Amino acid sequence: MFHEQLERSWRASNSLLCIGLDPDPARMPQPLDGAHDAVFQFCKAIVDATADLVCAFKPQIAYFASQREEPALERLCTYVRERYPDVTIVLDAKRGDIGSTAEHYAREAFRRYGAHAVTVNPYLGTDAVLPYLEHGGGVLGLCRTSNPGGDDLQALDCGGEPLYVRVARMVNDRWSAHGDCGLVVGATYPDELATVREVAPDLPILVPGFGHQGGDPHAAVKAGARADGRGLMVSSSRAILYAGSGDDFAEAARNAAIDARLATLPDGW
Amino acid sequence: MFHEQLERSWRASNSLLCIGLDPDPARMPQPLDGAHDAVFQFCKAIVDATADLVCAFKPQIAYFASQREEPALERLCTYVRERYPDVTIVLDAKRGDIGSTAEHYAREAFRRYGAHAVTVNPYLGTDAVLPYLEHGGGVLGLCRTSNPGGDDLQALDCGGEPLYVRVARMVNDRWSAHGDCGLVVGATYPDELATVREVAPDLPILVPGFGHQGGDPHAAVKAGARADGRGLMVSSSRAILYAGSGDDFAEAARNAAIDARLATLPDGW
Repeated sequence: MFHEQLERSWRASNSLLCIGLDPDPARMPQPLDGAHDAVFQFCKAIVDATADLVCAFKPQIAYFASQREEPALERLCTYVRERYPDVTIVLDAKRGDIGSTAEHYAREAFRRYGAHAVTVNPYLGTDAVLPYLEHGGGVLGLCRTSNPGGDDLQALDCGGEPLYVRVARMVNDRWSAHGDCGLVVGATYPDELATVREVAPDLPILVPGFGHQGGDPHAAVKAGARADGRGLMVSSSRAILYAGSGDDFAEAARNAAIDARLATLPDGW
Repeated sequence: MFHEQLERSWRASNSLLCIGLDPDPARMPQPLDGAHDAVFQFCKAIVDATADLVCAFKPQIAYFASQREEPALERLCTYVRERYPDVTIVLDAKRGDIGSTAEHYAREAFRRYGAHAVTVNPYLGTDAVLPYLEHGGGVLGLCRTSNPGGDDLQALDCGGEPLYVRVARMVNDRWSAHGDCGLVVGATYPDELATVREVAPDLPILVPGFGHQGGDPHAAVKAGARADGRGLMVSSSRAILYAGSGDDFAEAARNAAIDARLATLPDGW
């Protein structure tokens, strides 16, 4: 069960930090550049250097798929589950399809990769996420993104509130009736995160965009944490993964993760 | 270039039929059930039996991913491109992510699989599709789906028109300024297809849901074809793939495809 796993991760780590695993072939550290099994070895080194500092790892499947590295992603997820069972695995896939196709995406996320939760696009509505929840896995509904085109649809006024607030409401009121859900809300606009938190007081929220993408982590935590200080996975990828590019890349990543964990600690922790 | 390829496919085939390649392990025909390389061999047999009857093949990546069959999908796309160069390949992936992640999905679709076009979820807005278009590939924006939850967001009133019409407008007016685009509109409601066609008079529209999902193909063609009778890829999957389950499965698929092609011929062809 996703929620139970994630509560355990927050307790065990005392951290809201999530590290995004986006192995970019153009940015491999020098010792692994061109090496055999570089994608897996790079991610494993980052995981080993930072697992005690995070509540979650979030592999981004696109980076594996573009490099024919699905087998590395399988091994990586197995490694994290066996070695660091208290850390939650969120597969960032943003899938979205209907009926039998969604069932196959659910098998991909939960049976093949063994993720605890998967990010899903909300555009197809409630029945499109039931196959994931029937597998017993968690679903994080994509709610608000902070890219320049995020407003194109998400900010449209739908009966007095923007579409992304409607999405938060749908996930909180309807999806959650069927299983363990959460939301994805970019870090750039803390006011919007606070609005989503009002609509969904208890749901876990994945907050990407801290670090390289420029969101202020402290403001995000203040706006989005639950009353108990938890409730968020604040995600950073490149600023940690590529903090160093030489032999010390894992140590540099650990140092960056230490800073990032501190920057995302709620007041009073 | 996607549009040019698809126009060639329509001319060469005189067909609006698209066959969805969804290799379901639970429905493998008896001769291939449990066989070595069954997923590829099944799809190849369907392709060989029907390629002269279709404008496009639409592999659904979820079915390959759930079975660890990405290598079969690579070989299948290569096979279609080499053996049937006049047939368009649409990778049905419904991806949607931003910036560098979208760039990796674009590499997956166009460089790894060699698709001519990919289906993309519109929720992240215009900048999220630029990486696909910069690769020179086509983008089919998911506009309207006919599942029960399709209305949850798509039918919301956004300033006087439903969200899916806004999506059609965004794809037609903004995405298309950057490359070859199209739309995905379910076959179930011909009136809605006609509305989308008004908003996007020239864009190719992929129309899934004919056959097993119950859409009326003739009504869909009437509502959605361009003035010249072309403009649609009307897609059927299971009703063709699983028309037979014995040794004659490919022949049964061909017969079903012959009927489906006739059922989707525009008046006067």
